[in-house]
Formats: sequence, structure tokens, C-alpha cells
Amino acid sequence: MDTREKISALRSEMAGTGPDVYIVPTADPHDSEYVSPRYMTRAWLSGFTGSAGTLVVSRDEAALFTDGRYFIQAERELAGSGITLMRIGEEGVPTVREYVKRLANGGSIGFDGLTMTAESGRYYEKIGTVTDVDLADNIWNGRLALEHSKIWLLEEKYAGKSTAEKLLEVREKMSEKNCDAHLITALDSVCWLFNIRANDVEYCPVALSYAIVTRESATLFADNISPGAADYLTGNSVTIHSYNNIFDEVGKLSGKRVLIDEKRVNYRLANMLKNCECVSEQSPAELLKAVKNGAEVDNIRKAHIWDGIALTKFMYWLKTSVGKASVTEFYAAEKVDNLRREVAGEHFLSPSFETISAYGPNAAMMHYSAKSASCVDLQPRGMLLVDSGGHYLEGTTDVTRTYALGEISGEERRHYTLTVRAMLRLAAARFPQGCRGENLDVLARGIMWEQGLDYRCGTGHGVGYLLSVHEGPNSFRHRIRAGVPVSAVLEPGMVTTDEPGVYVEGSHGVRIENELLCIRAEKTEYGQFLEFEPLTLAPIDLDCLDLSLMEPVDIRRLNEYHKTVYAKIAPHLSGEELEFLGRYTRPAGQTSRR
Amino acid sequence: MDTREKISALRSEMAGTGPDVYIVPTADPHDSEYVSPRYMTRAWLSGFTGSAGTLVVSRDEAALFTDGRYFIQAERELAGSGITLMRIGEEGVPTVREYVKRLANGGSIGFDGLTMTAESGRYYEKIGTVTDVDLADNIWNGRLALEHSKIWLLEEKYAGKSTAEKLLEVREKMSEKNCDAHLITALDSVCWLFNIRANDVEYCPVALSYAIVTRESATLFADNISPGAADYLTGNSVTIHSYNNIFDEVGKLSGKRVLIDEKRVNYRLANMLKNCECVSEQSPAELLKAVKNGAEVDNIRKAHIWDGIALTKFMYWLKTSVGKASVTEFYAAEKVDNLRREVAGEHFLSPSFETISAYGPNAAMMHYSAKSASCVDLQPRGMLLVDSGGHYLEGTTDVTRTYALGEISGEERRHYTLTVRAMLRLAAARFPQGCRGENLDVLARGIMWEQGLDYRCGTGHGVGYLLSVHEGPNSFRHRIRAGVPVSAVLEPGMVTTDEPGVYVEGSHGVRIENELLCIRAEKTEYGQFLEFEPLTLAPIDLDCLDLSLMEPVDIRRLNEYHKTVYAKIAPHLSGEELEFLGRYTRPAGQTSRR
Repeated sequence: MDTREKISALRSEMAGTGPDVYIVPTADPHDSEYVSPRYMTRAWLSGFTGSAGTLVVSRDEAALFTDGRYFIQAERELAGSGITLMRIGEEGVPTVREYVKRLANGGSIGFDGLTMTAESGRYYEKIGTVTDVDLADNIWNGRLALEHSKIWLLEEKYAGKSTAEKLLEVREKMSEKNCDAHLITALDSVCWLFNIRANDVEYCPVALSYAIVTRESATLFADNISPGAADYLTGNSVTIHSYNNIFDEVGKLSGKRVLIDEKRVNYRLANMLKNCECVSEQSPAELLKAVKNGAEVDNIRKAHIWDGIALTKFMYWLKTSVGKASVTEFYAAEKVDNLRREVAGEHFLSPSFETISAYGPNAAMMHYSAKSASCVDLQPRGMLLVDSGGHYLEGTTDVTRTYALGEISGEERRHYTLTVRAMLRLAAARFPQGCRGENLDVLARGIMWEQGLDYRCGTGHGVGYLLSVHEGPNSFRHRIRAGVPVSAVLEPGMVTTDEPGVYVEGSHGVRIENELLCIRAEKTEYGQFLEFEPLTLAPIDLDCLDLSLMEPVDIRRLNEYHKTVYAKIAPHLSGEELEFLGRYTRPAGQTSRR
Repeated sequence: MDTREKISALRSEMAGTGPDVYIVPTADPHDSEYVSPRYMTRAWLSGFTGSAGTLVVSRDEAALFTDGRYFIQAERELAGSGITLMRIGEEGVPTVREYVKRLANGGSIGFDGLTMTAESGRYYEKIGTVTDVDLADNIWNGRLALEHSKIWLLEEKYAGKSTAEKLLEVREKMSEKNCDAHLITALDSVCWLFNIRANDVEYCPVALSYAIVTRESATLFADNISPGAADYLTGNSVTIHSYNNIFDEVGKLSGKRVLIDEKRVNYRLANMLKNCECVSEQSPAELLKAVKNGAEVDNIRKAHIWDGIALTKFMYWLKTSVGKASVTEFYAAEKVDNLRREVAGEHFLSPSFETISAYGPNAAMMHYSAKSASCVDLQPRGMLLVDSGGHYLEGTTDVTRTYALGEISGEERRHYTLTVRAMLRLAAARFPQGCRGENLDVLARGIMWEQGLDYRCGTGHGVGYLLSVHEGPNSFRHRIRAGVPVSAVLEPGMVTTDEPGVYVEGSHGVRIENELLCIRAEKTEYGQFLEFEPLTLAPIDLDCLDLSLMEPVDIRRLNEYHKTVYAKIAPHLSGEELEFLGRYTRPAGQTSRR
């Protein structure tokens, strides 16, 4: 079936007593960002393959809502499908809720309650009659079943804390809220809490699972747990139930005061808590896991050295191969993935997301994916954007570099220089405890704003520890909107990416991304100051810079960063690669390191 | 009575069946920042004369809460009073509410309900038994009665819009909220709406008044209205009632859906609305008056030229007099007030707040007030901070400059240079529509943070038009706290001050303050960009700068600003003053304007 046929089949399911409007979010029962194949319903129905989007279908209309990262890609993928692209955040574009409200007009609204958050479900109940039904299931031939891969134990030397310690911390927060029980549905929170990992979601080493923590007990709902992990959990007083048992056990919480996050728990499960006193708040696990502990931080620094070695080798290979051998975007992506594996050996588990290797105009798509068959041959001119990361036992990485493959245009050079300045200015921030990403975002983005430019996404996101490469609650972004939670207050131990960029449709894209570790700086009469340590250690391509567009402070910052990169990475390289690293981390404007 | 005796007298009133804890905020029935003498209860009782603070008295304890602007002053004024100073925002210092909760311990809490906001009152009702009683009235001999000065009409050529037009705008916002009536209690909002002014509050040309706007009617509650104003109001279909009638008329709203701002309406009045369906939100008048209309903006620009002329003359006088004649802080303050009057003639109505003229260590007190008897003689060394402003028919101004009177220390020079850089960096901001002060504050404050410095106040506040020199809802500040409203989204027409500073107790203080008008910049594919036009036009003392601590971009911005100052102010000066202006607006680092 092509997209038109699928939408038409969906409409047949909606006919008669079916819902007037059907909503397909990108979600699984755990509000995951990346979903297991079984739940890739929106992608299957609409043909749009980006990681974020919501499809809304009525009897006459069909619309796909996505954000700025995917405007260009979605336009391409939706062409001819009859589905209208709704560019979230652009002037005059309704929100999904506003759109559904208009279409439903008080009628019936359907969705698969496992893939809708309770909060959204409650909203739709207010504006129509809600049917919790998975209509796609009836038309999706060959839909995969959920697979439960083997769950393994992340040893405490990597996790830094025992499950028992983490349970204590979670229970302390539950006490503060006077809650008897806490239902955790987010996969990364559950896996963090129990020091377990698995392979149930592509690019995210989590296990399909739920947890219920009470004052006295802790229950993990998951299948296929390795004996080692099972022993560990039992030793930490954790009870293990099968994944699907969650519905029965949640029913037993009746009458209790339960902490859940209505913004994340799925609608169907939340409906089973109707006899409880629910306190809806972000799970304390989210903040606890965002603040990396000492062992995690030490490990993460190690992972970034591997990353830096791999990226330097990659850059050397790229600069010396393009123009001599045939290199495609896809091949370059494979190269960087393979280099991580070579450098870190068994400590490298997998890429942390699908590597983006985007040449020329393709780089204007923030989340471009090079397919082996269709992708572009790199030419000795223009720029290649490579956004990649690894899951190591020592943590998760995420880094972007944009490289000149030869001559680049004046505009490309100007945009590259702005991006580097923006990245470095945010990285140099120093601020007293109490600040949030919304306070600091302008340090990066303001460099773009000065030129009438912007990028249609946040400046950065939290990064999990061998968990999702995108995690809350810390981030760098600027919009503050009524009803939308702001980013968490930045705390020492948080890891956030700093990835400004410039994207010019049909021409080029630049993004430079470092991960920043929040650390303590001096304490003065004005409080405890914090600053960032750059975790990412990879050369920023000096070939793309226009030094005349940089302030002296920008150049100082760049040189200082490159000095650190050289000091940390050089001991691991030799021969031409070492010489290359020296050349590409030299003080900007000079011809050699000296 | 001295302070100890007053607190003791208050405790006698509290004895027996009186409240266990008595709260005295700084407020009048209108939640005004500056209050008429009758309501200066907190200052009278505690001896602390700053503009912001709350006194809390129990049978055993007494504490005065104030913010960072007043720490040094409050410490001095409270010495020996037995009242503990509570420094709001410092580590370990409870909030007023937390403190009252602990002291009351479930018992009874008293306050004058006219001076407590409904929202605070509701909170205290939750933690104790509330008594609405004005205990201070029994012990305050010679307490003044409320005075109603003559209310005059601000002609439309100054106000820019008729009352009828403003009522239309307010009613439109009421409709959006589905409200039948709107009770306005903030004096500046009422005066803005009806184009009236008076002299009931020192430094704030407002009339004691209330307003009730319904879909069909508009009622002003005020006394002593001039015939001209009364005619105008009648012509705009406004009904006039006596000030004290508000309680009767509010009683008649029973059953209606009423828009009030519980954060601002007084507790006693709010209690009369118990039979209404109250929608608590900021009055639409607040945002409407914050966005200055075209005529107001044109007028404000005029007022700032007068201000700039006066300040240039003042600076010339200061630099040529100190060391030759005896000049005190107080005399300098009088000088600047008089110069505004001389320059603008009848268009100048009064200073917009008590001029701060603070020499040396006194400038470390952000809101120092030089008294004629006790103040300091200026010496030909160190720095003088002058923060002053005027109420003109053409609008309200607020400007701070810090001047070298001779040699200054290296630290003073360093702090001065940082302050100038900070002020200029925020003023140079360019940003798409949708940003708030919380997004931009770091542009100024971050310069201090880099050095482990900070200032214990916002970076800037909105400025009224011939109204309060401090007005919401726009501001520059950085803390984002749950339950505390964020600043308004910045819109073209808003005026906000930009006033970073460095304050070193016992040594010196620097503040440089420009007012910024938000204006449209270019529109690109990323939206409508906004930027700031500096309204303030007064030289920044080049004698205090260390150019080696400035980036080239800082120097460019300073020179550009001074070029504007010269272009706008020079035509109004001659002789030595003109020559002086030329010298003090020359490109930094050069010896003359050329």
C-alpha cells in the first residue's frame, strides 16, 4: 500500500461508528522519543520517517505536524501523499490540539491510548468523545510484535550507584510529596533506576519496562532478564514481574496517593488509576539521572576521548580521501561508526543515533539520513556535516562537526564562523546556581539573531548515560510559554549539548556540537558559580573559518579549546594522524602549532 | 517613640485576643510601590525607610524582609532596633510566608487587609486564622489622613489615545476571558485608562482611585476631579463615583464573572467579591499601557532630549566645580533636579523618584538617599553615582550615570568598565518576537558573572508614561521560579531600563542606566526581529574607563552611542558646555571628537 491507500484504509476503519478524527502520535506506551518497530505507526501510515511528528486524519483532511528539524525532509517525504505538512511554530500554524478541536467540532476523537499521554487524553476528553482504539492495527499487515531482548546488568563501576541507593533517593522525593507509590513509565528512568540495559529500541539501550516504587517495595515489570541482572535486582530487594503484568498491579494501587507524570504516562494506564489520589509531577528519577554522579562523569570523560580519537581519524581520512577515492555520504557515516568501534573495542556498544552524514544542500535538513542506495558522492568542494555519537559502557556521546571538502562559498564560510562563535560563547558561560537553559540560550543563538538568522530547534539537550541521547529535564532553549515546563535549573553533573547551526534550504547547512558538563566554578559572595567543561574533544575545521568575522575573544576561546583537544587526544595518535591533529588544533591564524 | 517602643506598643495591641503574628507589608490599598504618607506604616514602625520591605512581628520576634537593593541601608537603619534583618534571596533566609508560617504555628495572623493582596491573604488563611485589623492605627499618633489632590486631564496629544479607545481595548480583552466586569485597583492602570493624573503619591503622578469596567459602563472612583477632567470623562461615557464608594459598588457585582488580579487587589476588597465568579489575571490595562503608542513614543524621545541636555550640563558643572567649590551629595542632587526644571520649563512636573546622589562608599547602597544635614562633601577623587529621572508631560525618565571626580582606584575603573560593557551588550540585543527579559538578561549580567560578580536586583524595569517610574509587566531579570510570573514578551513600544552595576560595600558603587525602547528591526524567514533604541542621551564618563578591558565590539558600541548622544544633544548647547559634550562623546581612546 502507498500512503494514499493507507490513509484511505484508515478512513474505512473510521467510517460508520468510528471516530471522526484519528490521531497518531509518535509514541509507544512509554512516551519514548525513539520507538520500537511495532510502534512506528505514524511513519508507516504517513511515509514521513523523521523521529518526531503527529498525524491527524479526519474524513476529509489529513495533516502531519512536525518541528523545524524536519520541515525540509517532511515536505519531500509527504509529496503526493495528500497529507498536508503543518510546520509547528510557524506563524498561523495551529497546534495539534487546536487542529483536532476544529476538525472534531465536538464529535468523536480516536487514538491508541497506549501511545497518547494521559494529559493529552484528558484534553481530548474535554473537547470530544474519546475512543481508545488502535485502528492502524487492523490495516497494518506484517506489523511486528514487541520484542523483549535480553536485559543485562550495567555494573556499578559504570553506573556509579547501586539500585538500593537510587531507590533511597527516589523514596526521599516521594516522601516530600507525601506519596505512597510512584509509577515510572519512561524507559530510561526505569533502566537508570535498576541499572539495567537492553536492546528493545533502536539506538537506545533500554528495556521495555515499567516500575512501581512504594515506601517498602520496588517492582520491575520486564521480560527476558539475564540471570546476572535478576540476581542483582533481587539483592537490591527488587521484585520482578512480567512486562504485561503492569495493568494488573496498577489496579491494586487503588486508594493510594500515587506520584505519576501525566505528561508522560500513557492514557490507558492512567485510566486504571482513577481510584487513586494522583499527584502529577515529573518523576524524581528524571532529575536524579540527569545529574551524573562522580563515577559516571569520570567514565563519560573517557568515552569522549575515544570519540575524539575516532573523529580526528575520521577527519584525517575525510580530508585525505575525498577527491581521490569515491566516497559517499553513506560510506562516510559507516566510516565514523566503524572508527568508534575500532577505537573503543568492546566498550563501544552501538551508535547513539543514526549517524547524519549530509553533504551540501542535504545538510540543510537537520536530521538528514543518507540511505546507501540514493546518497550523494562527496566532491572536493563544499561542506559535509557529520552528526554522530556512540553508546559506550562509559556513557553516551553526541557530537557534530562540519568539514570543508575543498573550496566553500563566502556565505558558507560566514555561516560556519557564526556557528563556531555561537557554540563557543555558550560554552564559555559562567553563572550562579539557579540559572536555566532559557537564561543562557541567547549566548549562542544571539550570534545568529544579530544577523537575522536563527535555527528552528533548541540549542541543546540533555544526554543520558548509556540511555537516550536526548534526555530531559535540562536543555538550552529560549521560548518560555504558559503551561509548558521550563528547563531544569542547571546543576553540576548535568550534561547538555551546545549545537547551534545555520541551515539554508537548497544550499548548505552548518552545525557544530559540543557536549558540555556543568561543573562548579568559584564561590563568591554572590553564590556558587557554575561553568561548563567541554566533554567533546574533536578539532573544529579551521579551513572553514573567516577570522576577520571573529572578535579576539572568539579566537582566544577557539584556541583554548583546540589546545585542550590536542593535549587530550595527541597521546593516542601517531604518525600522519598526530601531525594532522597538530595542524588542525593550531592557533587560528597561524600556519602551525609550533 | 523610638523603634523599640513602637514594636513594644504594637505587641501590647497584639496581647490578649490579638493576633499571634502581625504583618506590615509596604503597600497601600492599591498595591502601590510608592505609598502615600498615611500608608508608610512599615517605615514608621521599623525605622527602615527603603521603598520595599515587610515587617513581621510576633510576641518574641521581629524581622524586616527586604531585597538586595537595601541590605546595606537596612542594616544601618535597623541597628539597635531589635528587629532582625532578613536578606531576601540569600541562602538560608526564609520567605516572608515561610517565616510567618513558622511563627504562627497554626495560630492567628493579623494584618491591615487594605494593604495585603488577596493572594497573600488567601495563603495566610490556609496556615492560620486571619484577622483583618489595622493595629498600627491605634498607636500611630499624628498619622496623616489620605489626601486627594486635584485630578487633572492629560491631554490626548500627550496620552496618544482617548479613554474611549482604551476602554474598547480593555473590553476586547475582557471578552476574550468571557468576563462581565473588570475591577482595576492599580493606580497607574486606572490613571492610564482615564487619561488623568494627580499628586496623591510622592514621585508618582497618580490619583487615589479605582475603576470598574463592564461591557456597557465604565466607572471611576476618585475625588477632587478638575472640571476639565470631569468633562472629558463624561464625554467618554465614564461615570464618576467618590473614592470610598468602591466598596458599595463592588458589592453590587454579585453573581457576575469578574476579572480581577488577586496578586494585586487588596484582601478586604476581594472579600467583597465572594459571590462573584472571579477570574484572576493581570489586568489587560497593564500590558496595554506598557506598549507605548506612537504619540507617546514621540513624546518620550522629546523628554529624553531634555534629560540629556540637563545631564550634560550637570556633568559639566560637576567636573568643573568639585575641588573648587564645596559641593555635597545633596547639593548635587538638587542641581540635577533643578537643571531638568530649567531645561524643560513647564513641561517638567517633578523628579520621577528621589534623586540618588551617592559618593564613594554610599554608592554601594543601590537606593541611597542623601539627606541635607548628614550628607557627604564631594572630594576631587573617587566616583559619584547619580540616579535621577523626571516626570514630563512627555513621559517619565530614569537614568543613572557614575562620574569620576578625580583619581579613581584600579578596582573602581575595572568595575566601571564592566558595567559599561554590560549595559551596552544588552542594549545591542537583537531578537525575534517572543523573547522575554529572562532570555536577554544574561547579555548584561553575564559580563559580571564572568568575574564572579553580580548585582542583587533585576537588570531593568518597565517605565510608565507620566506614571510610576517602575512598571510591569516587562523587565530584564533572570530567575524563573515556579509560581512567579515571568516577564512579558517584549513588544515594540515597550520601554525598559538597562541598569547593570557593581556594588562593593564600604568602598564604591557603579551603575550605568539607559532606557531602551523596543522597536522593530528586519523581518526575515525567521520572523520579525526586534531591537532596542537607546532613549537616554547622556555621556558615559570616559574618564572612568579602562579600554584595555574592553573588546573591540564594546568600544564600537560605546562610540556609536556617543555619536548619537552628540548628534541629538549638541544642537541644544553652546560655548563651554558644547565643547565639553564634544570632548566627552569623542571616540574612546582618542583625545578629541575631531
